[in-house]
Amino acid sequence: MYDFAADSADCARAVEAGLSEYLTGARLSGPGPAADRVIAAMRHGSLEGGKRLRPLLVRQAAAIFSVPREQALPAGLAVEMIHCYSLIHDDLPAMDDDDLRRGRPTVHKAFDEATAILAGDALLTEAFALLANPGTHPDAEVRIRLVAELAAGSGTGGMVGGQMRDIEGEKGGFTEAEIAVMQAMKTGALIRASVRMGALIGGADARALSALTAYAEAAGRAFQLADDILDVTATPETMGKATGKDAEAGKQTVVARLGLEGAREMLDRTVSEAVSALRTFGPRADGLRATARYFASREK
Amino acid sequence: MYDFAADSADCARAVEAGLSEYLTGARLSGPGPAADRVIAAMRHGSLEGGKRLRPLLVRQAAAIFSVPREQALPAGLAVEMIHCYSLIHDDLPAMDDDDLRRGRPTVHKAFDEATAILAGDALLTEAFALLANPGTHPDAEVRIRLVAELAAGSGTGGMVGGQMRDIEGEKGGFTEAEIAVMQAMKTGALIRASVRMGALIGGADARALSALTAYAEAAGRAFQLADDILDVTATPETMGKATGKDAEAGKQTVVARLGLEGAREMLDRTVSEAVSALRTFGPRADGLRATARYFASREK
Repeated sequence: MYDFAADSADCARAVEAGLSEYLTGARLSGPGPAADRVIAAMRHGSLEGGKRLRPLLVRQAAAIFSVPREQALPAGLAVEMIHCYSLIHDDLPAMDDDDLRRGRPTVHKAFDEATAILAGDALLTEAFALLANPGTHPDAEVRIRLVAELAAGSGTGGMVGGQMRDIEGEKGGFTEAEIAVMQAMKTGALIRASVRMGALIGGADARALSALTAYAEAAGRAFQLADDILDVTATPETMGKATGKDAEAGKQTVVARLGLEGAREMLDRTVSEAVSALRTFGPRADGLRATARYFASREK
Repeated sequence: MYDFAADSADCARAVEAGLSEYLTGARLSGPGPAADRVIAAMRHGSLEGGKRLRPLLVRQAAAIFSVPREQALPAGLAVEMIHCYSLIHDDLPAMDDDDLRRGRPTVHKAFDEATAILAGDALLTEAFALLANPGTHPDAEVRIRLVAELAAGSGTGGMVGGQMRDIEGEKGGFTEAEIAVMQAMKTGALIRASVRMGALIGGADARALSALTAYAEAAGRAFQLADDILDVTATPETMGKATGKDAEAGKQTVVARLGLEGAREMLDRTVSEAVSALRTFGPRADGLRATARYFASREK
């Protein structure tokens, strides 16, 4: 029996320890000694935080191919570093202008704006350095595919492009289809990359990769739906960040369009869709199934 | 006879055309369609500009190993994208707060701050996407080494770390040795990565790579020295950006310490050092020799 609570807690511990070990002056690459301040800011923006869902997805997808969890960790750390850099930059005054993240001061509040910009840039860069490291996977062909996958998930046609679309959408006038594309890119693309990276580490063939991509795209939509719902239903205390911001900003979320119950029904259908995509994999995909269901039930 | 003016002009044209072709919605990777606005900002921040010295170094180092210039271009584009992202972020109000770059409005002036942050993030990410593309080099082992090299040159122990040290140094109290480390990281590390990437494309052995690294480190110091000298001697009109900023900010450059003549003598010695490191390579290294000498003579 797969135990989601145990596996996700174990993964979160492994990610915390892995990031803490990797994000030191001694470990990071480059011809010169890193500045202590940028390392401190990178650590502030990435340690002691988050559910580490993306590394969990890497681990769970790799588990389908019997990859031991420690072999899926480096790629998981790289995805998490991308996620954390995006939060640091999104929190900046010129973007969402948030003072708190997980109940603690955001990086530009704890340090300053210039340091937050640089710490984000550094986390983004070091994510690729980590993937290039032979310790991540012995086969260079797999490592370079991981680089391509992470870049595709986080770049212009993925997370960053989605973030840009989100800002443009705040000015109003987005159609429902445009909102769906924006959300698939802003949060979906990195979830998709996480699952596909786990599959690539496991040596998935084209058919398995395609099924797992279908899972990941549905799971990403479920994650976003849950987020939109929580923005309406949760309190700032539970979430450790401001809520009700979407409605305040007049954002065209699914909740605004379908109402709370309609959005919850759509969430259930989307989770079913994700789980259905895994039908050929048997019990080794129970981790991914549990994560999709968790998206529908999470309370923060 | 190697013709520096012709080769550098040809390289600049190739980089301009290559970036313009790569930075379109159709070419960039990712599951979704990139936002037009972020692509426009990436193009504003990277096209029609600059001397393209880093791609030239990639090409010149690769030429030692008889690599045709078009085969050195993709890696050169990747380095140039990193250079351009760093300029976009450095120009932001929270960093150097510059309104003009090469005589045109900086990206945050032509667009806005959020767009400039995202365009920088996107260029940084797409640089690694480009290196991962099989079109960059047929051998995955070489491509992943290019990723490692570029990340090392531009990350915490390289360019970004140097930028952080520079900001800290502006508060004063840096020793001469600390300034040297900062400059080696801030501008030297990416020059070093450019030369080494050219060598890796050419299949350089450890000995050749070591000689070229020695060249690159001296050339990087020469480049920085020339920059410090130009900040004192050039006019804003020639440079297309503000000058005299170092002295105004009380920056501890070599010019401030040795005076203008002392700095010029040191620049000549450093160029000699760079050229000496190439002695085993014969005429195929004339390109790199010419670039080091160009650093000593440039007027903008």
